[in-house]
Amino acid sequence: MKAKSFAGMRCSIAGAMELIGDRWAVLLIRDLTFGLSRYDDLRTSIGIPAATLSARLKQLVDVGIVERVRYQDNPPRDEYHLTAKGRDLWKVLLALREWGDRWDASGFGAPSVETFDADTGRPLRLGLIDPETRRAVPAGRARLRPGPAADAGTRRLLNLQKGSSDDATG
Amino acid sequence: MKAKSFAGMRCSIAGAMELIGDRWAVLLIRDLTFGLSRYDDLRTSIGIPAATLSARLKQLVDVGIVERVRYQDNPPRDEYHLTAKGRDLWKVLLALREWGDRWDASGFGAPSVETFDADTGRPLRLGLIDPETRRAVPAGRARLRPGPAADAGTRRLLNLQKGSSDDATG
Repeated sequence: MKAKSFAGMRCSIAGAMELIGDRWAVLLIRDLTFGLSRYDDLRTSIGIPAATLSARLKQLVDVGIVERVRYQDNPPRDEYHLTAKGRDLWKVLLALREWGDRWDASGFGAPSVETFDADTGRPLRLGLIDPETRRAVPAGRARLRPGPAADAGTRRLLNLQKGSSDDATG
Repeated sequence: MKAKSFAGMRCSIAGAMELIGDRWAVLLIRDLTFGLSRYDDLRTSIGIPAATLSARLKQLVDVGIVERVRYQDNPPRDEYHLTAKGRDLWKVLLALREWGDRWDASGFGAPSVETFDADTGRPLRLGLIDPETRRAVPAGRARLRPGPAADAGTRRLLNLQKGSSDDATG
């Protein structure tokens, strides 16, 4: 159900949501990340209607997030794998998971999955990093500024945001 | 259009998507983050049909992401503000923006917004952090393990993932 295309807006958040699609697609990308690759496995894992699954897989293939790979010729059978572009969505998935855990979105009262450091065994979190120093930067120090593709609407919104400094979004 | 509730799944990604809703809701949260707060401003900024806007605002209020604040009594007029729970979605928005910029989801060839450090002026990125050392950890070192609320399905998926180590999602 695409009520309206967001593609014309000068916003990469809108663009990302346009490519990813809906919640079913997010769960599909999650399961492909875990290594599920076959249609029936995906259908069972997500509990998604077959027609919806087929439509979402086609959409994700069309936008380059998923690739279809033939693994058997007779009868023909395909597997689905994330492309580099699809694997690169891991921060979106992790941000959703951290938020869901923090606010108990599933109502289970505790996380069901934890991300940890293979070298130290300690839990890891998403956060702001200065790529030069490789050190974490407190969210309160983050600000937004227009990028090369900013248009008048973007600049107007960024001006609105000046003065408020408790987050780092855009 | 809610084809099926994801609430029964033991997954905080699914839970988060269930609470946030659809792409309109993501854009609403984006604009509320920028400081837009009035119905007409939101409608104009997003180009969202009035009925859709009302429905999404109600959903976001119901799940505690947005609060409605009366700013005028006669005639009655309300503003909309993110709650702490809503503001805490900034990492989801930033992850979407980084991914959209990297893969040029909007087709503009360059970012329209940049996040930078108010102290140094340097750009900031989302990444994995060890909360003890406050240092960035390479994504290749991240692994997943069951959390306290893991069920059999979660453990099965996590076992699938062992061996593959090129990302850090779940």
